[in-house]
Amino acid sequence: MNHLSVNHLLGIKKLNKEDINLIFNLADSFKEVLLRPIKKVPTLRDVTIANLFFESSTRTRFSFELAQKRLSADVVNFSASSSSLSKGETLIDTANNILAMKVDMIVLRHPYPGAADFLSNHVDSVIINAGDGAHEHPTQALLDAYSIKDKLGTLKNKKVLIIGDIKHSRVALSNIFCLKKMGAKVRVCGPSTLLPRFLTSLDVEVSYDLQESIKWCDVANILRIQLERQKLNFFPSNREYAMLFGLNKDVLKNINNDILLMHPGPINRGVEVTTDVIDSNHSIVLDQVENGVAIRMAVLYLLAAKLKKK
Amino acid sequence: MNHLSVNHLLGIKKLNKEDINLIFNLADSFKEVLLRPIKKVPTLRDVTIANLFFESSTRTRFSFELAQKRLSADVVNFSASSSSLSKGETLIDTANNILAMKVDMIVLRHPYPGAADFLSNHVDSVIINAGDGAHEHPTQALLDAYSIKDKLGTLKNKKVLIIGDIKHSRVALSNIFCLKKMGAKVRVCGPSTLLPRFLTSLDVEVSYDLQESIKWCDVANILRIQLERQKLNFFPSNREYAMLFGLNKDVLKNINNDILLMHPGPINRGVEVTTDVIDSNHSIVLDQVENGVAIRMAVLYLLAAKLKKK
Amino acid sequence: MNHLSVNHLLGIKKLNKEDINLIFNLADSFKEVLLRPIKKVPTLRDVTIANLFFESSTRTRFSFELAQKRLSADVVNFSASSSSLSKGETLIDTANNILAMKVDMIVLRHPYPGAADFLSNHVDSVIINAGDGAHEHPTQALLDAYSIKDKLGTLKNKKVLIIGDIKHSRVALSNIFCLKKMGAKVRVCGPSTLLPRFLTSLDVEVSYDLQESIKWCDVANILRIQLERQKLNFFPSNREYAMLFGLNKDVLKNINNDILLMHPGPINRGVEVTTDVIDSNHSIVLDQVENGVAIRMAVLYLLAAKLKKK
Repeated sequence: MNHLSVNHLLGIKKLNKEDINLIFNLADSFKEVLLRPIKKVPTLRDVTIANLFFESSTRTRFSFELAQKRLSADVVNFSASSSSLSKGETLIDTANNILAMKVDMIVLRHPYPGAADFLSNHVDSVIINAGDGAHEHPTQALLDAYSIKDKLGTLKNKKVLIIGDIKHSRVALSNIFCLKKMGAKVRVCGPSTLLPRFLTSLDVEVSYDLQESIKWCDVANILRIQLERQKLNFFPSNREYAMLFGLNKDVLKNINNDILLMHPGPINRGVEVTTDVIDSNHSIVLDQVENGVAIRMAVLYLLAAKLKKK
Repeated sequence: MNHLSVNHLLGIKKLNKEDINLIFNLADSFKEVLLRPIKKVPTLRDVTIANLFFESSTRTRFSFELAQKRLSADVVNFSASSSSLSKGETLIDTANNILAMKVDMIVLRHPYPGAADFLSNHVDSVIINAGDGAHEHPTQALLDAYSIKDKLGTLKNKKVLIIGDIKHSRVALSNIFCLKKMGAKVRVCGPSTLLPRFLTSLDVEVSYDLQESIKWCDVANILRIQLERQKLNFFPSNREYAMLFGLNKDVLKNINNDILLMHPGPINRGVEVTTDVIDSNHSIVLDQVENGVAIRMAVLYLLAAKLKKK
Repeated sequence: MNHLSVNHLLGIKKLNKEDINLIFNLADSFKEVLLRPIKKVPTLRDVTIANLFFESSTRTRFSFELAQKRLSADVVNFSASSSSLSKGETLIDTANNILAMKVDMIVLRHPYPGAADFLSNHVDSVIINAGDGAHEHPTQALLDAYSIKDKLGTLKNKKVLIIGDIKHSRVALSNIFCLKKMGAKVRVCGPSTLLPRFLTSLDVEVSYDLQESIKWCDVANILRIQLERQKLNFFPSNREYAMLFGLNKDVLKNINNDILLMHPGPINRGVEVTTDVIDSNHSIVLDQVENGVAIRMAVLYLLAAKLKKK
């Protein structure tokens, strides 16, 4: 098999295991391109891509933009602040206008869950979800799973702990889908107010005991406390969160020496993790970022192939 | 004739019929380029263009930027929010600084009427007006007229109705100039508070009766209600505007089946036009957007020729 | 000698005279490139540069971006408004994330003095300081000194007057370092509240008499009144400043006809200098801007060489 089963990347839920393996294999090749002096291939020089970011972002936008430039695509960027959003145009109208200018693909970040899915049903283009509210963030989950596989050889039966605010995290949901599809065991740990009930239906273990969970896992993915996404207070203060669910040296004292620590960024140092822990040699945070460009190149490449078949 | 009579594109008022036909003919060729797999020609690879947008814009900025990239120009972008405008620099100083960096052309959007014209008199560069307050928006008028000609074969004696807020609309003024020069008949229709007195001097019919006007016309160009540009209230509410001057199925019931519906965007669905009407097969809104890139390529190409003669 | 003594451009203080001459000589060559029809060389096509601007800027950002494009580098841009700064990430984390995406060099503008220096000690990349608070702005000082040398043949023993707000000006500090290293004589003139005490330790003359100082100098560099950087009021009003330290025709009446007038921009016309004076043929403001691109090309080129040695 050398093509994806889907025409868009809307979420991990819609991918199958073969899709994910295909993306991983291609990412391996692109990682090699990124180690060359000239990190560029002419593969997508006939493709124009619009990055539509209706929420602020640094790392995801940079990562997509660099992936696109490495593939020689033409790129136009849009961010909400300088847009006509305030002028009351619908998302579909905005997208159709951009597509009418012979743009081939849209990378969409949007505050509303389902925005990418909705758009894919209403416009004739390839859509890549770069984060839709608290729903999915599929390229983040792919780069996370790829980074684990890269370090541990396989995801099969690996024990992955996701710590923190599961309720507001698109990263958590996409990670759970991806890890389960690849055969990993997943546990979440956090304050009960931030662990939604639907988790049990996803075959995910739930724990409120960080110490015990850290001992259990091979990999701990530490989520960012998304203060900007919370509408209510789900825990009393950052300090109390840090005391109960923050990772620090004490928590890590009695654990598996080979544990991998991940974080999707941006990190709130001193809240969900202390500086000594996240800068320790357990951390693969920068590997995640590096792999992100290769993963996004793979996704762009595979979806561009769908485009040409049209 | 194969060159423009002007050295800048400041407004349609300064163009003659031959200029407009020249732009249209060249746009035909560029439309073909845009249908190729690789939508790029090396024509302007020795030209550097600065897009200076002192007002927010999505579609116009994207359209110019794509036109420039298709022509292989080097592009630098500036938008007011991240600028030194707040630092009190004059427009001429800003422009001269940018030009001193060996920038060849400036595409200017500015909130003040006459800004592009003023700049063209004070700096040594080719200036393209991408909208100056409520004055002119020449590339919009060119793409509108081109889109009508593309569908109806000619503009000569075609009856074009412009509906809505003529008073605050640079699109309306540029359209009127362009359509009259090309031999079309123009009528405007809207609330009396939004139809300025000078219209009669432009040889434009004025009507307050939407039903009758819709029956009269071959083409209806529905203007956006520019809430953000109004300083006072010129009509009681959006709902009353929609009732009296909004286009809906009822209004369209008894009319010419071949009527073309246009809108410069962004559309306020449910205000100046209902969704069923603007999404009907009368609508050529997306053709307008598509033609916009070809028109802007033609304008950039023809003005770049002026540059080389210098 | 054909390489810099430093691995970063953090400030003029760390450069020696040979470094500055090397940059000037290379800038001469790049100025010639900028006069060609195709102003582009493939020199840095294997280099990816991130422009991180945590403060707004038009001219410096444009100048760096054009310098990078003329050298064929790949460029990604970031400005604070659309960033994850508000999400609480540290500067080091932001930079390391970007570098993990195989970005080679960072051009940093940041409101805090020492930010570029700090970053260069904590990340593995080449850092170029594009302005750090009220500390240094080295490329501005280089282009200023280069512009003087370009007009007067040498900097040796030339008398350069810097007028205005020395206290809040990174331009002043970098200029003083650069001019002294190149053998010029430097005097500052301004309200006593804006002339810091440490100036005497830098071997700089201090004067409160503009008339006398203007008669003394070969070159007057007029600083912008940085109203946006002042936390307190250091003088009663712009009008009083203009009366006492603003350059106008009266001040210039009895002086050396060959005096050069400089300004780093953006100019507050009518405050620190009147329009007739800054637009007179004494002014080399636009030469400064033009030379800025060549100077930045030289700096980027020389620091990229450091990169390849790694």
